[in-house]
Amino acid sequence: MRRLDIALTPAGVSGGLYETAAVVIDVLRATTVIVRALDAGAKRIIPTLDPEDAIRVRERLGRDGVLLGGERNAVRIDGFDLDNSPASYTPESVGGATIAFTTTNGTRALQRVANAGAPRVICAAFANLAAVVDRLAGDERAHILIVCAGTEGAVSLEDTLCAGAIAAELVVRDPGVTLTDGARAAALLYNGVRERLVEAVASGDHAQKLASMGFAADVVAAAQRNVSTAVPVYSDAEIT
Amino acid sequence: MRRLDIALTPAGVSGGLYETAAVVIDVLRATTVIVRALDAGAKRIIPTLDPEDAIRVRERLGRDGVLLGGERNAVRIDGFDLDNSPASYTPESVGGATIAFTTTNGTRALQRVANAGAPRVICAAFANLAAVVDRLAGDERAHILIVCAGTEGAVSLEDTLCAGAIAAELVVRDPGVTLTDGARAAALLYNGVRERLVEAVASGDHAQKLASMGFAADVVAAAQRNVSTAVPVYSDAEIT
Repeated sequence: MRRLDIALTPAGVSGGLYETAAVVIDVLRATTVIVRALDAGAKRIIPTLDPEDAIRVRERLGRDGVLLGGERNAVRIDGFDLDNSPASYTPESVGGATIAFTTTNGTRALQRVANAGAPRVICAAFANLAAVVDRLAGDERAHILIVCAGTEGAVSLEDTLCAGAIAAELVVRDPGVTLTDGARAAALLYNGVRERLVEAVASGDHAQKLASMGFAADVVAAAQRNVSTAVPVYSDAEIT
Repeated sequence: MRRLDIALTPAGVSGGLYETAAVVIDVLRATTVIVRALDAGAKRIIPTLDPEDAIRVRERLGRDGVLLGGERNAVRIDGFDLDNSPASYTPESVGGATIAFTTTNGTRALQRVANAGAPRVICAAFANLAAVVDRLAGDERAHILIVCAGTEGAVSLEDTLCAGAIAAELVVRDPGVTLTDGARAAALLYNGVRERLVEAVASGDHAQKLASMGFAADVVAAAQRNVSTAVPVYSDAEIT
């Protein structure tokens, strides 16, 4: 019997994930951007905790073909090439590039889960929902842990919804998967709003903040399901 | 602007609750039992962490009019008068009595929240949902924290649903209350299943365990809303 659990914030992640299929979600916007960037032809994404670390990555690899992307306080970092809007990641802007990438919540969640022992971490968003469910259904490992990046330590609605979407769809695909109560609650939550997902995502704190800053289109884009078949995996300090 | 947050397990409670309206929920079954016991005419309930502490309470107060209630592994504790089934708490069994009461999750959550500085902790369940919402709507304090007892450290579906029910109904009653994303998620969850609440509660891990042990009627009873107007409050080490 495979068991699926959800950590609503990374604070709940405490190590020992060596044999666990680990997934990280940051719908607004890091994992949505990561999916988009790979679809747009980026070669790889190297997540870093700080802007300074991203700059060091570029110094180490050489400027050719290395872009800096991400945000602080939701906007582009001074001197960076790309912000954290999915729309900025196009074949023209990122095709063939390595992207050193840092965001407030998503890249930290990825590193925390990797540090907790997960050798490979799947990056999930609504954009690649079905592809992630496919990948998990084909995974042999006994335990699945979906970690929501949340927003500055707090539970975020959109990440909880996306975790619930994966749980709800995976139990249909693979009845051998057992949900913990936390996963069951998230799946019920998603099923209750699946027909009005954009509205539900837009009601969250972070979505409201982004909308007030002019990023309402990013919120709508991030709530679109199955626009990609990419399954980005973070392993050995890079996402491919 | 009043802010309502939910802690899905007591582990998220870290102190500083001196000015916070605090609520503890353990639908299966401690807070449901507490509501029932007061309705049945119990004089007061003294929650204790361990069975030994409950026995000490009785020794201190004298045997007259003091009953021992609660559970370990869901069943009555050896030598105790009452188990943790709401149905056991009747006017005949508990009228006028002081009950020293210990359960695996609920009484620990109450003590943890009290130790975190909350001078008065409301005990909530589906049984007294509307009464708790009334009380919170009339409370002047700026912050409300609903703490779910959970089940042995894990998130529990039924407590999350009940916290969501309070959040969903309180924002209708008092539009000045702002939900955090965690509270918003729980409210959406509850609204999605409010018309089939018994089924939703029964699908949880703890409900399934209780049903397998012969306590299915307790699960159905605990999912009944507004059967009581009692608002038990834990203060100065006792609930009245």
